[in-house]
Amino acid sequence: MSLEKKQLRNIKIEMNYLDNPDGSVLIQMGKTKVICTAMIEDRVPFFLNNQGRGWITAEYSMLPGSTDRRKARDITRGKIDGRSQEIQRLIGRSLRTAVDMSKLGERTIWVDCDVIQADGGTRTAAITGGFMAMVIAINKLFEENKIKTNPILNFIAAVSVGISEDGAILDMCYEEDHKAIVDMNLVMTEEKQFIEIQGTGEERSFTREELDKILDLAEIGIEELIQIQKSELKDLKIFKQ
Amino acid sequence: MSLEKKQLRNIKIEMNYLDNPDGSVLIQMGKTKVICTAMIEDRVPFFLNNQGRGWITAEYSMLPGSTDRRKARDITRGKIDGRSQEIQRLIGRSLRTAVDMSKLGERTIWVDCDVIQADGGTRTAAITGGFMAMVIAINKLFEENKIKTNPILNFIAAVSVGISEDGAILDMCYEEDHKAIVDMNLVMTEEKQFIEIQGTGEERSFTREELDKILDLAEIGIEELIQIQKSELKDLKIFKQ
Amino acid sequence: MSLEKKQLRNIKIEMNYLDNPDGSVLIQMGKTKVICTAMIEDRVPFFLNNQGRGWITAEYSMLPGSTDRRKARDITRGKIDGRSQEIQRLIGRSLRTAVDMSKLGERTIWVDCDVIQADGGTRTAAITGGFMAMVIAINKLFEENKIKTNPILNFIAAVSVGISEDGAILDMCYEEDHKAIVDMNLVMTEEKQFIEIQGTGEERSFTREELDKILDLAEIGIEELIQIQKSELKDLKIFKQ
Amino acid sequence: MSLEKKQLRNIKIEMNYLDNPDGSVLIQMGKTKVICTAMIEDRVPFFLNNQGRGWITAEYSMLPGSTDRRKARDITRGKIDGRSQEIQRLIGRSLRTAVDMSKLGERTIWVDCDVIQADGGTRTAAITGGFMAMVIAINKLFEENKIKTNPILNFIAAVSVGISEDGAILDMCYEEDHKAIVDMNLVMTEEKQFIEIQGTGEERSFTREELDKILDLAEIGIEELIQIQKSELKDLKIFKQ
Amino acid sequence: MSLEKKQLRNIKIEMNYLDNPDGSVLIQMGKTKVICTAMIEDRVPFFLNNQGRGWITAEYSMLPGSTDRRKARDITRGKIDGRSQEIQRLIGRSLRTAVDMSKLGERTIWVDCDVIQADGGTRTAAITGGFMAMVIAINKLFEENKIKTNPILNFIAAVSVGISEDGAILDMCYEEDHKAIVDMNLVMTEEKQFIEIQGTGEERSFTREELDKILDLAEIGIEELIQIQKSELKDLKIFKQ
Amino acid sequence: MSLEKKQLRNIKIEMNYLDNPDGSVLIQMGKTKVICTAMIEDRVPFFLNNQGRGWITAEYSMLPGSTDRRKARDITRGKIDGRSQEIQRLIGRSLRTAVDMSKLGERTIWVDCDVIQADGGTRTAAITGGFMAMVIAINKLFEENKIKTNPILNFIAAVSVGISEDGAILDMCYEEDHKAIVDMNLVMTEEKQFIEIQGTGEERSFTREELDKILDLAEIGIEELIQIQKSELKDLKIFKQ
Repeated sequence: MSLEKKQLRNIKIEMNYLDNPDGSVLIQMGKTKVICTAMIEDRVPFFLNNQGRGWITAEYSMLPGSTDRRKARDITRGKIDGRSQEIQRLIGRSLRTAVDMSKLGERTIWVDCDVIQADGGTRTAAITGGFMAMVIAINKLFEENKIKTNPILNFIAAVSVGISEDGAILDMCYEEDHKAIVDMNLVMTEEKQFIEIQGTGEERSFTREELDKILDLAEIGIEELIQIQKSELKDLKIFKQ
Repeated sequence: MSLEKKQLRNIKIEMNYLDNPDGSVLIQMGKTKVICTAMIEDRVPFFLNNQGRGWITAEYSMLPGSTDRRKARDITRGKIDGRSQEIQRLIGRSLRTAVDMSKLGERTIWVDCDVIQADGGTRTAAITGGFMAMVIAINKLFEENKIKTNPILNFIAAVSVGISEDGAILDMCYEEDHKAIVDMNLVMTEEKQFIEIQGTGEERSFTREELDKILDLAEIGIEELIQIQKSELKDLKIFKQ
Repeated sequence: MSLEKKQLRNIKIEMNYLDNPDGSVLIQMGKTKVICTAMIEDRVPFFLNNQGRGWITAEYSMLPGSTDRRKARDITRGKIDGRSQEIQRLIGRSLRTAVDMSKLGERTIWVDCDVIQADGGTRTAAITGGFMAMVIAINKLFEENKIKTNPILNFIAAVSVGISEDGAILDMCYEEDHKAIVDMNLVMTEEKQFIEIQGTGEERSFTREELDKILDLAEIGIEELIQIQKSELKDLKIFKQ
Repeated sequence: MSLEKKQLRNIKIEMNYLDNPDGSVLIQMGKTKVICTAMIEDRVPFFLNNQGRGWITAEYSMLPGSTDRRKARDITRGKIDGRSQEIQRLIGRSLRTAVDMSKLGERTIWVDCDVIQADGGTRTAAITGGFMAMVIAINKLFEENKIKTNPILNFIAAVSVGISEDGAILDMCYEEDHKAIVDMNLVMTEEKQFIEIQGTGEERSFTREELDKILDLAEIGIEELIQIQKSELKDLKIFKQ
Repeated sequence: MSLEKKQLRNIKIEMNYLDNPDGSVLIQMGKTKVICTAMIEDRVPFFLNNQGRGWITAEYSMLPGSTDRRKARDITRGKIDGRSQEIQRLIGRSLRTAVDMSKLGERTIWVDCDVIQADGGTRTAAITGGFMAMVIAINKLFEENKIKTNPILNFIAAVSVGISEDGAILDMCYEEDHKAIVDMNLVMTEEKQFIEIQGTGEERSFTREELDKILDLAEIGIEELIQIQKSELKDLKIFKQ
Repeated sequence: MSLEKKQLRNIKIEMNYLDNPDGSVLIQMGKTKVICTAMIEDRVPFFLNNQGRGWITAEYSMLPGSTDRRKARDITRGKIDGRSQEIQRLIGRSLRTAVDMSKLGERTIWVDCDVIQADGGTRTAAITGGFMAMVIAINKLFEENKIKTNPILNFIAAVSVGISEDGAILDMCYEEDHKAIVDMNLVMTEEKQFIEIQGTGEERSFTREELDKILDLAEIGIEELIQIQKSELKDLKIFKQ
């Protein structure tokens, strides 16, 4: 495990990519491209009625043409893909930790992450980009005077790290992921604290030492991602109070 | 009905928009944006087994963030949207008329049209762009020597025409469509012949004279669309035999 | 295209065919037989609540034994047949144009069209017969003093016209439909105005001249159908104010 | 329990009611009307492959307009009605006892029972009529020389008997059924032997003496029903060997 | 039919088997084991709103590992097993006859019967055990002063009886059931009156004499079952008023 | 974070709990009870055909009566619970790492984990118990001479660790889990290596130091669990070669 890849792939953010959602970005990490949108609905799920709090929910999907071999639509298969469901639960959980719901009012923010081109790391790109779309939508609420204070608790981003026969790899592309022995996704805050850790020994179990190496690389990646987020979002009114 | 709008909206085609499909375009008509992909599968549906012919099938969907008010995913609602199903049947039927299936071999071409931004005319943009993605995929078969002759019978494109209180309108945007009294979608060939005519008197029934006016405008639009298609696709090897 | 078939097939209407619905007819066009029923429910869909207007909705289905080769039930296949869904949307849309919803009160009229024997033209028979069942149900509302004025705006009927190698054909049976090059369904008013035009070039595209020929035949068919409807319905109290 | 109603309601059989199925009848018992069709498919379910035996399966459904209050379609509700499923399992089981499957060849007979008007006793009418449709279809196999011997083991019919406050009632209509304390459906052979007994104490439990009274009435009803079946079917070639 | 098996299999009841439900038993009849739970919900189905009455509903399922060959879960197959649905309707119907709903208040009792080991007679064990779980839950309502009087009208139990080539058999195990010519399930009260009779001639029809023999055996079985129920439940406060 | 709970809850294993599966255990951790069964099928999923390798798949479900508030069945809700699906993917992935598939032959082992009583840690109990059921089933293959060598690569077990306001807690019960700030599930081998790490900051993000504390406790728990597994399974023939 001497070799390491400590670099994120090329990142490109297209802010306000679509006109209709309250917030949207197209995030590219290498060849992976995800459209992230955030839309605000003026009501909350049943279980939150009359509590004066908001809610954030996420959905994740891949276009049929996003992969090399066509991915059948969920509706054609008659049920949601298990992997997609797991990912959208992860995205929703992560985004909810970043916002003070009591400052949102009785509103739901729907964050949709639709992968249009997949080359590894789609779930982490979805979280990093979904957070940005959500912030833009929240800023819109603020600009329209619908909320009075900034409900965003901290910036979050996500990154994958793997271990292959050659060493640890930050931000794997599909081919690297495919060959990885260990595959880990981390959602972290700007203070390098953990929100989610999901690691799988795909080919073999891994040691605590290897885990430490993974966490070191993740910190490097998260730092760079949050820098990019901050640079793109810095002019939003909500950050200038 | 003195006023007429005889102009298509601004059209922009991004060829080979995605890496993984065999053919892809991003088509924009005004603010409407549709990702069209074509993917080839080396088998045919059950009912065509062992007949030496190919098949073309289409799917159509709108991203949740494509519209002003979030559009719930089919899989969440548990069934395919009736409108979407109708549209994808229309797309498939139209594309199949443009290809000689006996020259495709036992292959299926899957054409996926995913609307990422909707501002009226999504189904007609899907047909016009889906045809282009399909042609690119067929050209790839030809370049790879998997087919020997050009199976494309003619170019096709589609356009909407409406009648409002002010007059007839070519290529309506959402707001115009919303106000239209009559709404018609036409799929036509480069020889100005009809493949599909679908017209609805949304607010009132319409006369044969009004129908004639609509058909005149459709011819204008189709001519321009097919010119654009030809200009974009002219360098494909399949057209240079 | 020298030959033409300008005659509708034999038509037979059995009024009040069933006891339970508010209106019902059994319509036969040639060998095609469709049971059309109309049932009134004293509430409207969610999106129309508290607007003082009514709604009309239609469903269409074919019995398993209606066709030569047994047609599996939708519930067995787990999803509604795409063709059926398209047809029932057409029926509902057409019937709604014929009624002034503001005079119905907050009521829904459910029109069900169940094909018990299919020999071509089931969708057009469903519209022609469904209109009659609906009128009978509306007359019942009137007789029961639940509505004060006649909400029916005009009579409507539907007919199919095709073009085969031998010429144009009015009201095709299954075998004729199967051989048709062009297949068109038209829903029209008693003034010969169009409500819906749906035409498909099944085998080849068609010219504007051929379209004109089709429209001429459709006018002949619609005239005869509406005469029959009027003759059957003339004694209803709602038409005698 | 002094009073008894020992009479079946008026029965009317319309033989060969539809053109497309291999066998069909419209059976009316009082106001209850059921279209019964039988269609032959030249293969058997998976679990019977290569055993040289046939299979019989039944489906039962009610049209939306068959009842006083509109019955939503199964496909709209997204699942098959529990009552319908139970009834179709009963019909299939009953019909299978009446046929020697080893003489059918590897064929499936699909028996469809669609209630177009419901006034009590729809399941028993479906069995009595479904048996007849099935026999007509089997006779067709025989006439076409596809089977050599008569596979029908015995005639079967079904009838309902109830107990109300006034006494026992043979062949209840909907209103009688609604008031019944005990409701029993019996499927029996021409020798008065039982194939199925399904009895429910809807309002209270019932005694063995009451059960005996019910069985006496059932025998009367079954005898009359099988007489009618035999009279209608007597000219079929399969019974004239 | 000289031989008879007049003995129930070994019965074992584990009262209050689980901590969370309001009532629960594990019932074993021979090798058949069913977990029966009863849970109270403080509302009633829509159709009973504001009538001051309660409701009882039952669900039945088999664990994948309960049978010799793994039983796929309903959710995997996408629809509820027809047999399970029929059984749970039977359980619910039976339990409702045993309780005066007007004394329950606007509450629903959910009775769940989950078979963990199947060796014949699972539905009858579910009814016998489900009744006990329900009584424990009702007693809890009484102890908590939520109901003032005992709503239980009578004890009920269920048993299967079959006829094989060797004679009649009470309480068949799977192997006996498999070989049975006639298979009957009976739900009866402590007064030996019938609530449900469901009998099927699986291999051949059966005579009235055979039916009488079956009913004699059922009475023996029901008597023993209700004795066991009473002995287990005798200390509940609701029976000591 | 001064206080720690370093003790697993009471563990009880009932080996060969059910008769029909190839392997089964009832595992109890505190009040949590999970029935784990393993059943062998002599074929593999489509994607593994003709590769000479086996497959292991898992399903997880909770009985309606397992929780305090009744849990609706998946089939009633019409879709599999997102949480259940995520858990069963985790179980399957974990078990597959413990077995050399190439030594299984073309067989699938179905591991079903059905929670009958839930008090926290159901997924980890399911993995620990599911592994044991699987080993018993594999031993049966070995005893029946269907496999020649031991395919088990290592023992695995799973445990949850949480962080509450008072400190770190090993093997949380429901109430502790409910109050936890951080919730982590770990699947590990007998060598203390990781197979899966899934951690969520439910209430707040967590530091790398807290993660280390969690991993320390997990090692303690895993060691004890694998000791128990080994003690229960030590007499299996497969471990005595």
